Amino acid sequence: MNITEQRLNEFRKKNENIGRLVIKCPDQPGIVASVSNFLLGFQANIIELSQYSLNPEGGTFFTRIEFECPDLKSKASEMKQEFRNIGEAFSMEWKFSDVSNIKRTAIFLSNEPHCLLELLWEWQSGDLITDIALVISNHEDSREIVESLNIPFYYIPANKDIRKEAEKRQLELLEEYKIDLVILARYMQILTPEFVAALPNRIINIHHSFLPAFIGAKPYERAFNRGVKLIGATSHYVTNDLDEGPIIEQGIERVNHRDNAEDLKKIGRSIERSVLARAVKWHLEDRVIVHENKTVIF
Amino acid sequence: MNITEQRLNEFRKKNENIGRLVIKCPDQPGIVASVSNFLLGFQANIIELSQYSLNPEGGTFFTRIEFECPDLKSKASEMKQEFRNIGEAFSMEWKFSDVSNIKRTAIFLSNEPHCLLELLWEWQSGDLITDIALVISNHEDSREIVESLNIPFYYIPANKDIRKEAEKRQLELLEEYKIDLVILARYMQILTPEFVAALPNRIINIHHSFLPAFIGAKPYERAFNRGVKLIGATSHYVTNDLDEGPIIEQGIERVNHRDNAEDLKKIGRSIERSVLARAVKWHLEDRVIVHENKTVIF
Amino acid sequence: MNITEQRLNEFRKKNENIGRLVIKCPDQPGIVASVSNFLLGFQANIIELSQYSLNPEGGTFFTRIEFECPDLKSKASEMKQEFRNIGEAFSMEWKFSDVSNIKRTAIFLSNEPHCLLELLWEWQSGDLITDIALVISNHEDSREIVESLNIPFYYIPANKDIRKEAEKRQLELLEEYKIDLVILARYMQILTPEFVAALPNRIINIHHSFLPAFIGAKPYERAFNRGVKLIGATSHYVTNDLDEGPIIEQGIERVNHRDNAEDLKKIGRSIERSVLARAVKWHLEDRVIVHENKTVIF
Amino acid sequence: MNITEQRLNEFRKKNENIGRLVIKCPDQPGIVASVSNFLLGFQANIIELSQYSLNPEGGTFFTRIEFECPDLKSKASEMKQEFRNIGEAFSMEWKFSDVSNIKRTAIFLSNEPHCLLELLWEWQSGDLITDIALVISNHEDSREIVESLNIPFYYIPANKDIRKEAEKRQLELLEEYKIDLVILARYMQILTPEFVAALPNRIINIHHSFLPAFIGAKPYERAFNRGVKLIGATSHYVTNDLDEGPIIEQGIERVNHRDNAEDLKKIGRSIERSVLARAVKWHLEDRVIVHENKTVIF
Repeated sequence: MNITEQRLNEFRKKNENIGRLVIKCPDQPGIVASVSNFLLGFQANIIELSQYSLNPEGGTFFTRIEFECPDLKSKASEMKQEFRNIGEAFSMEWKFSDVSNIKRTAIFLSNEPHCLLELLWEWQSGDLITDIALVISNHEDSREIVESLNIPFYYIPANKDIRKEAEKRQLELLEEYKIDLVILARYMQILTPEFVAALPNRIINIHHSFLPAFIGAKPYERAFNRGVKLIGATSHYVTNDLDEGPIIEQGIERVNHRDNAEDLKKIGRSIERSVLARAVKWHLEDRVIVHENKTVIF
Repeated sequence: MNITEQRLNEFRKKNENIGRLVIKCPDQPGIVASVSNFLLGFQANIIELSQYSLNPEGGTFFTRIEFECPDLKSKASEMKQEFRNIGEAFSMEWKFSDVSNIKRTAIFLSNEPHCLLELLWEWQSGDLITDIALVISNHEDSREIVESLNIPFYYIPANKDIRKEAEKRQLELLEEYKIDLVILARYMQILTPEFVAALPNRIINIHHSFLPAFIGAKPYERAFNRGVKLIGATSHYVTNDLDEGPIIEQGIERVNHRDNAEDLKKIGRSIERSVLARAVKWHLEDRVIVHENKTVIF
Repeated sequence: MNITEQRLNEFRKKNENIGRLVIKCPDQPGIVASVSNFLLGFQANIIELSQYSLNPEGGTFFTRIEFECPDLKSKASEMKQEFRNIGEAFSMEWKFSDVSNIKRTAIFLSNEPHCLLELLWEWQSGDLITDIALVISNHEDSREIVESLNIPFYYIPANKDIRKEAEKRQLELLEEYKIDLVILARYMQILTPEFVAALPNRIINIHHSFLPAFIGAKPYERAFNRGVKLIGATSHYVTNDLDEGPIIEQGIERVNHRDNAEDLKKIGRSIERSVLARAVKWHLEDRVIVHENKTVIF
Repeated sequence: MNITEQRLNEFRKKNENIGRLVIKCPDQPGIVASVSNFLLGFQANIIELSQYSLNPEGGTFFTRIEFECPDLKSKASEMKQEFRNIGEAFSMEWKFSDVSNIKRTAIFLSNEPHCLLELLWEWQSGDLITDIALVISNHEDSREIVESLNIPFYYIPANKDIRKEAEKRQLELLEEYKIDLVILARYMQILTPEFVAALPNRIINIHHSFLPAFIGAKPYERAFNRGVKLIGATSHYVTNDLDEGPIIEQGIERVNHRDNAEDLKKIGRSIERSVLARAVKWHLEDRVIVHENKTVIF
């Protein structure tokens, strides 16, 4: 058992009685009361509760609740079963999760490894709590580093002519490995609508610009040509509109006239790394709720 | 009726049914359920709820709840009366507030007006919701600008020899004007323990350094001499330990070798302005809870 | 003589022997040597020199030199005369300026006063060294504050039907008041190519978005609809392509899902204020060199 | 030859005619003229020149000049020889460097590897131009990663009882490997005055606080206890006053009441990584001039 597995096991043990409930529904009085009474009925203690109402009258209610519940493991299925009534009464979209049940991720990348390396680094140092089940790339470059950490690496050539075949193989692997989240860590291929539909709000991309500026290809070159004084990166869920999905996180850094397009790329790499890592962490902690092409981040 | 009074009246009207409940108590299961059942009993709809537990087991529970309640005005005193039972049951420190009941502030300053001007500006543009009831200064410089906005201005000379007399007069005015919050907007006098005790966690100061660096006098000169690359400002509640009170907000800006002590002061003024304005806004919105010389900011 | 005039006079006195030389020319060896020998010939001591070469081979050379020269006033015209030889030898675009000769500015605005107020505030506190010669607005709102500072205020109605007449009057005033720089401090009218041509790289605008995102109207509404996590503002020289002129400075602030379009406007106002003030200061200090729709900032 | 060696060789080739001159001396007219005439005499073209005068009258002059000079290799020793006259005439401290002559570094660390990993990562991706000649640690943990990159790793136990012996061995290695710069990448041992004296302004440390706040041990715990809203890291040259050496760079991140001391450490690691990497890069590019316990950064 290596250090990372050991850390994940410690995390599982420490969080064996911690659960989360994430809810979105039409707003009305009584939601918090119903949910908190429900939790109290199971002797659960609320640890962290965030709530937000969009347009309180006739609007939408969002909440994320983290709670500690003695013997959560043995109660979990009963809790889910019983919560259905509340869910129906308030027309909720809801998700119950068991924090010790660590999410499984697949990382996709092309030839630039900086985002992969950041994720691996945060993962090894215990800052990113996930089970990195496999890495898929259309380049061989990262095989060595990935395999050295005992993570399976799959080389799947991809380009627009063989997109269907590539995605077929990728989807098989995602199913085989029971993947919860796909992370596009600078994967430079466009995904088909079928692929995206198979994983709704479960594919996170990092785009190398401060969206919606510089949508599409070669954003750093275009930022250089425009003479901007700040460059950025944007992490978002993938939808079928290129670079138009719900934004999770953005970051920027200052640049100046001395920086050429190549310098912008270097500075940008550091922004991309940290923005993607933050977005992934928030998703893994169930902090992101998608609503009409935007995100609520708790 | 001038533009600012008009804005405040609009705010009162828009928020006539909005209330807030801010609570701190020993943590245990059932707090959220009790409070939300209570609110539901009055047909109140929760708009925004933030909650935090410090050390869930045997620790402290904090929450801030904003709610809409039909006919709040007529129900308010009954609500407060009835909430006492819950408050006692859970050993709560709690505060119920009626959002349309705008807080009254007094601004203290010496000769540098930048923080006063920022507050007045935000207040005139409707971004700072408070009733600025009076301004007190140990210099006459700001009288004209203050009086031009129909705010009473009191010149009260102050220095360490006449501190007691000055504070006596100040406290009389604070009582006369029914002041909820004192803002020290670069007021360069030390307050006596008696003055501080009269307004616990109700005096906000702006210190012109990134505390705890450069506690005390002449922080910009000392920052310059140390050759720091970032300078800052800190807004905190005043306690009897100089510059040691609970920190509400901090901000920083980058400086470089070309900036002399005078430049640091100029750059610092802009940090001080925005940091103080943010801290004051958070206090006015009941977003700050003090706990053991620290703050929880919701 | 009011406090601001007094401050400007002190500045003039302190800088009576300080000059600046700003140069752009094809790069080649010997430029710094020629210029520094020239300055030495007048006993001038270089205080601050910044230099940058874009594509050293066959590229462009930029420099900004600040120097102290005894009896600058009496030598200035001879210096300019003599520098022509060097200018011609190296095909330079160059500008010699006498720092004590303070630049004259005109501020244009529509109804939102926050950028005007910031500029006035920085000007009064001695942080913005310029002679604000007049304010022109297509709204009457700001007359009182402007005239209270003894600055002439001109109300010139403007809209697309009367653009030509309005601009004719504006240009007459700019000539009458010998204006060096026009500051569009949220002036919500489009300028004609003739107006822009009359003041090349001498009109600074503040656009209320992080350009090139949200070019054109209603940027905050569009930022809100896109669900961005950072909003920005951009200060640039005005050219005939809307919001496409050379960028001088940009700034951003973090926003979140709780902020509606109105909140973004409030947060944005504070970014606009500081970004415009920085851009104007850099222009006034001759720190900005325009090159092919970009800026070099020294 | 691995990818990193290949990149360094490309860098050497690309910069074979690029030189740098860094100068500090008492200010007086004529310095720039003399130096630029000197460079012109060798057909050198100035690519980047930064200059700064501290207190122009009777003060100190600083400059950093990067130039391209045909056949630099064959002219270098003659240039250095000849520059001595100018150096003496103006009482200069000066350093001439040949950019293709890449600096050799030694990285010291204890058990936390994050700063080491960042440096290795930037080095592998070509963003940090140095020859990492060896890594020295008082823990064995990082041996594998270091040796996998073909960098010699030396385990030298160290604590206050065996400080002298440990430093003796370290100094022998620094000499053997001809080290230009020592990087303390979270090396948790205090150095003796003898060690520091052997490498004046050639040891860069990263301190895990925003100095001068939290000098000494356990800064994150102390930051947590003080309830600060921003935490930072500081990179500085090591002197014999603990954490009091000339500051090269600082960085900060926002924290909040939810972050415990452990969270501050995690957030801090990311600040430390980037602050140290920037400071090291600036040193390697000869951008840092030390003057009276402060730095000028060009």
